[in-house]
Amino acid sequence: MERAIELSAISSGGPFGAVIVDKNGNIIGEGHNEVTLNNDPTAHAEMVAIRRACANIGNFNLQGCTIYTSCEPCPMCLSACYWARLDKINYANTREDAADIGFDDEYIYEEIKKNKEDRKIPMISHNNTISKQIFKKWFDNVNNIRY
Amino acid sequence: MERAIELSAISSGGPFGAVIVDKNGNIIGEGHNEVTLNNDPTAHAEMVAIRRACANIGNFNLQGCTIYTSCEPCPMCLSACYWARLDKINYANTREDAADIGFDDEYIYEEIKKNKEDRKIPMISHNNTISKQIFKKWFDNVNNIRY
Repeated sequence: MERAIELSAISSGGPFGAVIVDKNGNIIGEGHNEVTLNNDPTAHAEMVAIRRACANIGNFNLQGCTIYTSCEPCPMCLSACYWARLDKINYANTREDAADIGFDDEYIYEEIKKNKEDRKIPMISHNNTISKQIFKKWFDNVNNIRY
Repeated sequence: MERAIELSAISSGGPFGAVIVDKNGNIIGEGHNEVTLNNDPTAHAEMVAIRRACANIGNFNLQGCTIYTSCEPCPMCLSACYWARLDKINYANTREDAADIGFDDEYIYEEIKKNKEDRKIPMISHNNTISKQIFKKWFDNVNNIRY
């Protein structure tokens, strides 16, 4: 946690840092917020740390690993923790602390809970036969890698 | 939408494709799922398309732009659409369709809605004075780029 907080202090983007630790307690990936630095709205500290840890171990699955982050993950980063199959999430500041300094974490948590038609960003459904066929074809192909 | 669906068919990862279009209707970024290809659990089609669009225009803000995606975004990608300030989301398949072929979108939507203590991945809070001070210092620095 100390290292995650240290990263948040030296961050060149928003003040956030994160570290991924494997089951033996070794750091396998770390990062700080790089949104404004790299013009990448997805480059939150947790995302950067997850991507680097995965690249480091050559696997998209971080089962058995733990994340230490200087702030409670936003919904994007929390979902990424689920997709990466992390075992545990340790955080220091809360999403309310993040809201207090002007970040949208809390707002996006509220938006995600809503029904599609009530969200601020309009979501338009296009019923499509071809896209459904592509899903079915993928599902029926036993050679595809599931995750 | 046709291009997004086309990308989902030729995807080397999960069967998902996405395209970002600017206010003039020009494609400024596109991508398909690269999770298994690049060992990156964050490389969903929408994330790849957003990152490429931002890199392309040299800005972390995609205000005025629209995303076309072959499937309703998962919570990670939906949050990324909010962080990128997209104007509109167009999708073909739904998150229920994604669940039917084995993807966790629906499960993660349910997890995010829960209170922290009820989630499947344990979330451990570490109250920390230094991390709070770093937030305050960042907030008080008028030179920082807000987003």
